[in-house]
Amino acid sequence: MRSAGRSWLLLTGFVVFYIIYLLFGGLVFSTIERPEEERLRHELDTLKQEFLNHSCASAADLDHFLARVLQAHRSGVSVLQNSSQPSNWDLTSSMFYANTLVTTVGYGHSTPLSDLGKGFSILYALLGVPFTMLVLTACVQKLLFPLVVGPVAVLHGWGVAPRAACALHLLLLLLLLLLCFFIGPAALFSWLEGSWSFLDGVYFCFISLCTIGLGDYVPALQPGQRNKSLYQVSVIVYLFLGLMMMFLLLRAVHKMADVHGLTALLQLPRCEVSPDDEQRPILVTSQKTALLQPGVSDKHLAAGAEFKNVDTCYSPVNELRCLVPL
Amino acid sequence: MRSAGRSWLLLTGFVVFYIIYLLFGGLVFSTIERPEEERLRHELDTLKQEFLNHSCASAADLDHFLARVLQAHRSGVSVLQNSSQPSNWDLTSSMFYANTLVTTVGYGHSTPLSDLGKGFSILYALLGVPFTMLVLTACVQKLLFPLVVGPVAVLHGWGVAPRAACALHLLLLLLLLLLCFFIGPAALFSWLEGSWSFLDGVYFCFISLCTIGLGDYVPALQPGQRNKSLYQVSVIVYLFLGLMMMFLLLRAVHKMADVHGLTALLQLPRCEVSPDDEQRPILVTSQKTALLQPGVSDKHLAAGAEFKNVDTCYSPVNELRCLVPL
Repeated sequence: MRSAGRSWLLLTGFVVFYIIYLLFGGLVFSTIERPEEERLRHELDTLKQEFLNHSCASAADLDHFLARVLQAHRSGVSVLQNSSQPSNWDLTSSMFYANTLVTTVGYGHSTPLSDLGKGFSILYALLGVPFTMLVLTACVQKLLFPLVVGPVAVLHGWGVAPRAACALHLLLLLLLLLLCFFIGPAALFSWLEGSWSFLDGVYFCFISLCTIGLGDYVPALQPGQRNKSLYQVSVIVYLFLGLMMMFLLLRAVHKMADVHGLTALLQLPRCEVSPDDEQRPILVTSQKTALLQPGVSDKHLAAGAEFKNVDTCYSPVNELRCLVPL
Repeated sequence: MRSAGRSWLLLTGFVVFYIIYLLFGGLVFSTIERPEEERLRHELDTLKQEFLNHSCASAADLDHFLARVLQAHRSGVSVLQNSSQPSNWDLTSSMFYANTLVTTVGYGHSTPLSDLGKGFSILYALLGVPFTMLVLTACVQKLLFPLVVGPVAVLHGWGVAPRAACALHLLLLLLLLLLCFFIGPAALFSWLEGSWSFLDGVYFCFISLCTIGLGDYVPALQPGQRNKSLYQVSVIVYLFLGLMMMFLLLRAVHKMADVHGLTALLQLPRCEVSPDDEQRPILVTSQKTALLQPGVSDKHLAAGAEFKNVDTCYSPVNELRCLVPL
């Protein structure tokens, strides 16, 4: 009963902190953004007044026209694009849209205009989202040995203590992810997209790989974009690989939390089977898997076997039994 | 080796099918949306020409003005809002934005205008997204008994076979979810938002609870919206509860896939401990948990105990050891 009481207390604490976190975010964003918004609104008002002064259109006519323009813009159709410019719904652009649906990124830079399109989007995501998670999960399973279990065993083989090896490995993985999926692509995007700064690039990468996808920055939308199709397909591949690495990092972080007793402390589910059940198959499976991997010596396997005594840090058995977000 | 070969074959199949699925989506969306886009573009061209004919503004002046208007609109600042209208960055609107960040829904109806806002968004989501997943996970843990384990035990107590009880329960859960989080709210939204049809409401609920968040439909943005703050807070609560139920459904579906051997077939991780380890603690924990739940009789507990023979369908032990998407 005491444990149940503690877990309710924890849950209440979580929810209260969640509300406080939202309030805090609200306050900060409101403080930061409101003056900027005021400035932009004022600028638009001035621009509109100037435009009205230079033309003989009535304010009502202009507002009527602008209302329609903004409504179309919300669905991705710009009044500035003439008919000669490429469509938002050519094959690769449509694939790009389909990809933002199934990965749940959902930039919303172009959205279905027809009821049929909306209906099909629902159906497409209904099947596509779980399937994409399945594919990502299957890919992460394959990457666990070369990118998580292997390196930890190698580090341990070099004499690093198991917990330290886990921590060091996580740090290295984080650095790799930052370099290859945030810093590098951000530099590339800020070079390819004329109007993006480096910060805009980092912001785009982060907002995309967290699947938030606000859509204020979307690549390959510049008028007269060269190699648009190739660019869009590259972004699709980037999103897939990036999400895979984010999944992998989450698994590694969750393991780390297990090893350090954090999940137990917060009464959250562990990513593991019970320790006494774990002892038996761990070495067998390590060896089996290791046989298929080049460059893993017996020394590393022996090092891997030692893990069973240390809260079963990283092991293929463990990993294979764990549920990755589906 | 044969098993490893099969798993690589499966993975290749998944990836190939993923590419085909994207191509298929691209083709369908392109076919459906392109004529609509053409029509809208043509309509905008005509409107613009008419506007130019009635005013003495030059096309270049108008384009220059419109370019700025559309750029501001992308960040959520509309030229049609005058200074007297409420800000996008008042406290509840900012909280609403913060909520779309941490739940990864990310409508993008209003986006940070300043570099400071973008930087803070990254930091806020970096902490907020994992924390929100943690809170949702903790809530789902508490709901597992009353909404999943309990009902299955009750169904089984009425003489329904375990696998059938699982399937029937999943169906009931799905119906409950559909009714309370899709159909009901969609009707409410189409009533509250003047311009939304019922399909628009369903589309909004689906796109939101899948965390896609395209942002073409966002509640409480009508000019002159009454009780805007209360409305926005209600949508925040709706999103939280809805996401919780989606998590719960995913758990139930994953269990179902385990029970029917689908996860094993696809060589994906199960959400379970090994069956022989499972036998011992199941009844004990059922009883412990059941003591805290009103309306659960010994008959139901006995029914729950029978599960141990049937692939350990639903059990608190199992559930508590499982990893929910973090």
